[in-house]
Amino acid sequence: QARRQLHNLPAWDVALLLESSPPKARAIIWQLVDADEHGDILEELNEEVQKSIIRQMAPEKLAAATEGMDTDDLAYVLRGLPDPVYQEVLKSMDEQDRQRAEMALSYEEESAGGIMNTDTITLRPDVSIDVVLRYLRLKGELPEATDKLYVVNREDKFIGEIALSRLLTVDPAGLVKDVMTPDVQGIPVDMDETEVAKLFERQDWVSAPVVDADNRLLGRITIDDVVDIIREDAQHSMLSMAGLEDDEDTFAPVLKSTRRRTVWLAVNLVTALLAAFVSSLFEDILAQMAILAILNTIVPSMGGIAGSQTLTLVIRAMALGHITSSNTRWLIGKELAIGALNGVIWAVLIAAVVALWKQDLMIGFIIAFAMMANLLAAGLAGVTVPLILKRFDIDPALAGGVILTTVTDVVGIFAFLGTATLMLS
Amino acid sequence: QARRQLHNLPAWDVALLLESSPPKARAIIWQLVDADEHGDILEELNEEVQKSIIRQMAPEKLAAATEGMDTDDLAYVLRGLPDPVYQEVLKSMDEQDRQRAEMALSYEEESAGGIMNTDTITLRPDVSIDVVLRYLRLKGELPEATDKLYVVNREDKFIGEIALSRLLTVDPAGLVKDVMTPDVQGIPVDMDETEVAKLFERQDWVSAPVVDADNRLLGRITIDDVVDIIREDAQHSMLSMAGLEDDEDTFAPVLKSTRRRTVWLAVNLVTALLAAFVSSLFEDILAQMAILAILNTIVPSMGGIAGSQTLTLVIRAMALGHITSSNTRWLIGKELAIGALNGVIWAVLIAAVVALWKQDLMIGFIIAFAMMANLLAAGLAGVTVPLILKRFDIDPALAGGVILTTVTDVVGIFAFLGTATLMLS
Ligand SMILES: [Mg+2]
Ligand SMILES: [Mg+2]
Ligand SMILES: [Mg+2]
Ligand SMILES: [Mg+2]
Ligand SMILES: [Mg+2]
Ligand SMILES: [Mg+2]
Ligand SMILES: [Mg+2]
Ligand SMILES: [Mg+2]
Ligand SMILES: [Mg+2]
Ligand SMILES: [Mg+2]
Ligand SMILES: [Mg+2]
Ligand SMILES: [Mg+2]
Ligand SMILES: [Mg+2]
Repeated sequence: QARRQLHNLPAWDVALLLESSPPKARAIIWQLVDADEHGDILEELNEEVQKSIIRQMAPEKLAAATEGMDTDDLAYVLRGLPDPVYQEVLKSMDEQDRQRAEMALSYEEESAGGIMNTDTITLRPDVSIDVVLRYLRLKGELPEATDKLYVVNREDKFIGEIALSRLLTVDPAGLVKDVMTPDVQGIPVDMDETEVAKLFERQDWVSAPVVDADNRLLGRITIDDVVDIIREDAQHSMLSMAGLEDDEDTFAPVLKSTRRRTVWLAVNLVTALLAAFVSSLFEDILAQMAILAILNTIVPSMGGIAGSQTLTLVIRAMALGHITSSNTRWLIGKELAIGALNGVIWAVLIAAVVALWKQDLMIGFIIAFAMMANLLAAGLAGVTVPLILKRFDIDPALAGGVILTTVTDVVGIFAFLGTATLMLS
Repeated sequence: QARRQLHNLPAWDVALLLESSPPKARAIIWQLVDADEHGDILEELNEEVQKSIIRQMAPEKLAAATEGMDTDDLAYVLRGLPDPVYQEVLKSMDEQDRQRAEMALSYEEESAGGIMNTDTITLRPDVSIDVVLRYLRLKGELPEATDKLYVVNREDKFIGEIALSRLLTVDPAGLVKDVMTPDVQGIPVDMDETEVAKLFERQDWVSAPVVDADNRLLGRITIDDVVDIIREDAQHSMLSMAGLEDDEDTFAPVLKSTRRRTVWLAVNLVTALLAAFVSSLFEDILAQMAILAILNTIVPSMGGIAGSQTLTLVIRAMALGHITSSNTRWLIGKELAIGALNGVIWAVLIAAVVALWKQDLMIGFIIAFAMMANLLAAGLAGVTVPLILKRFDIDPALAGGVILTTVTDVVGIFAFLGTATLMLS
């Protein structure tokens, strides 16, 4: 019965079920799925889950599953294979699919070429619309998400496009070249997919033509695939900030996940040890006054929180293209001003709390000063750390948090224990 | 010259420029923009920046800017107004726009009704395709992102749809009712926009019809607006985790930003004070051994990092619909196992470091034990905190981090200083 139930689910639902299942259940579900559904499901799976499944499939079965797949989906599936298996799969494919696969994989994974499809319908400029309409009726069905037909000249160069909605509203007696929108810029085949997605968002496209350096039409990109890129890119920062991969599999096996997490913990242990080391510079005063030990975590922690807010804001702004050389200085000024204002507020408050709690005005004053200094440092680091990282081509979402908290930990401890040493010993 | 340059920029670029400018520059740019560009630019601005601009516009100017806007964009702009201004803007509108505005605003902001457009082209079932084709030619131009025409009966009930690509490929002699796809489910007008976006992603739609409870066709939703929702939803978790608003304006005035950040810092100060209070329970042993004060931050910090990784993973998995009652237990088991494994690794390592650094095996042993305990607590809290919050309808992205670090701080300090008290005093 499970097999029958699965058979009635659309491919997308089976993909969700697979992604939501622990490894063992995943293997069982996959065995229950009809072989002729394999291709449709593989297309919909996230990269990591897909990889874990195709690496356990026999090459011939995989070749069968990819039969007749859209070029973009073919590339997506085949990219997950280790080279020897890929070669075997290629051998089991029919000639046409093999050629398409080799072509698709010749482009960079995250480029326009890597996500384009080759199912374009092309027209010649001197044909009449009436002929086009008859040709389409003869053809019978258009590829999914076709909203435009492309016009190419004898050398296959892209010279214009006609929207279906225009085909339906113009006089059928006219010629393609008089009806088409000329001078449309095709997407260069090597453009990064994130840039492609921005163009789609900005221009509200449903599909767009891809061209090579000589403006020859190679294929088209459709909005459904761009939507996946937009979601992935938007989630990227959040996942990176926690040291997780873009396509992180929630139900990956324990050992695999542990290995990844360990790297992240190792990086962060260095930060924690550095903070401990800074504290150890003030061992004398800590030995004299346990109260300092108790309060020592408050200032670094508030600095970390405030700095993370600024960092998150800047990382998002950078992704949206909001940060330019002309507004950086204003932004630093703003975040410093916020740091100062919040510094005053929390300095006064924490001083009052500590003075009341521990009946010690001096320590209240010391923690207030440290808070002020650290919130300023947090605002400054929150803006400058991601900007500097970006200049060195390091992903600010991945490395920014660690560096930022190192700054706020070190400044916080120095400011608090340092001032305490000066004032109290 | 600045005015001329601005005039040549597409609305989208002016919107980006406004979003990337500090408040003063924003006001200047807005004054330089042609009044007949105002509407197009307002549509593209993010909510917060848009609000700050429309609140400074005269009601008549605003009414003029919204003239002839698509219904969805009209609703988007008008929602940002305080009620009295809104009433004034309504008065300055022509009758048709006023009716559309009142209709659009009668739906919930984040529902299908709030993002739908009323520019549908509807057909009757008994008409021949040939008549439809002639009607379209007469009409001359179709609304943007039109990929389907909708079929309604005499009572305006939605009974089917025809894709443009199908209109182009079928025999023109046939009737609409024989060519249309029947039994299509319209989107209920009160469906949440996030659910709408999931349907679009899943079904690869370009547009979809919206219906009321009686299946009457009310309008349609288009992919370009869904793309904006997808990006916003995907960014929501990252921004919430830092206590920032969805449409947070990077260049908001200092005072406005400070007010918001202060709330977040206040919440987090409670956590920091709680951690300090827990430490203060162990004042005796801290007073005896400054080394404990120095090492006291390491275990809570590692727990916080490990817990945040799990939390981020679970929040994303929840958003993708990966968490179900049947896999929760497996996931808790997995995260506990990772916690245990990482616990062993880092316990041994930190014990070695501390034993070497401070020449104290006992303290090495104590910190190892605390690390182990806290990484287990982190794994457990990372899965259960967001699940519990969700059950109480609290956004896990907003509150999860604070609660999680409270857990890892308290457990970490208790485990480290508590064990130290037991073993050393
Ligand atoms: Mg995907
Ligand atoms: Mg397909
Ligand atoms: Mg990418
Ligand atoms: Mg990718
Ligand atoms: Mg758009
Ligand atoms: Mg595709
Ligand atoms: Mg796809
Ligand atoms: Mg418009
Ligand atoms: Mg929403
Ligand atoms: Mg919104
Ligand atoms: Mg999709
Ligand atoms: Mg719209
Ligand atoms: Mg729009």
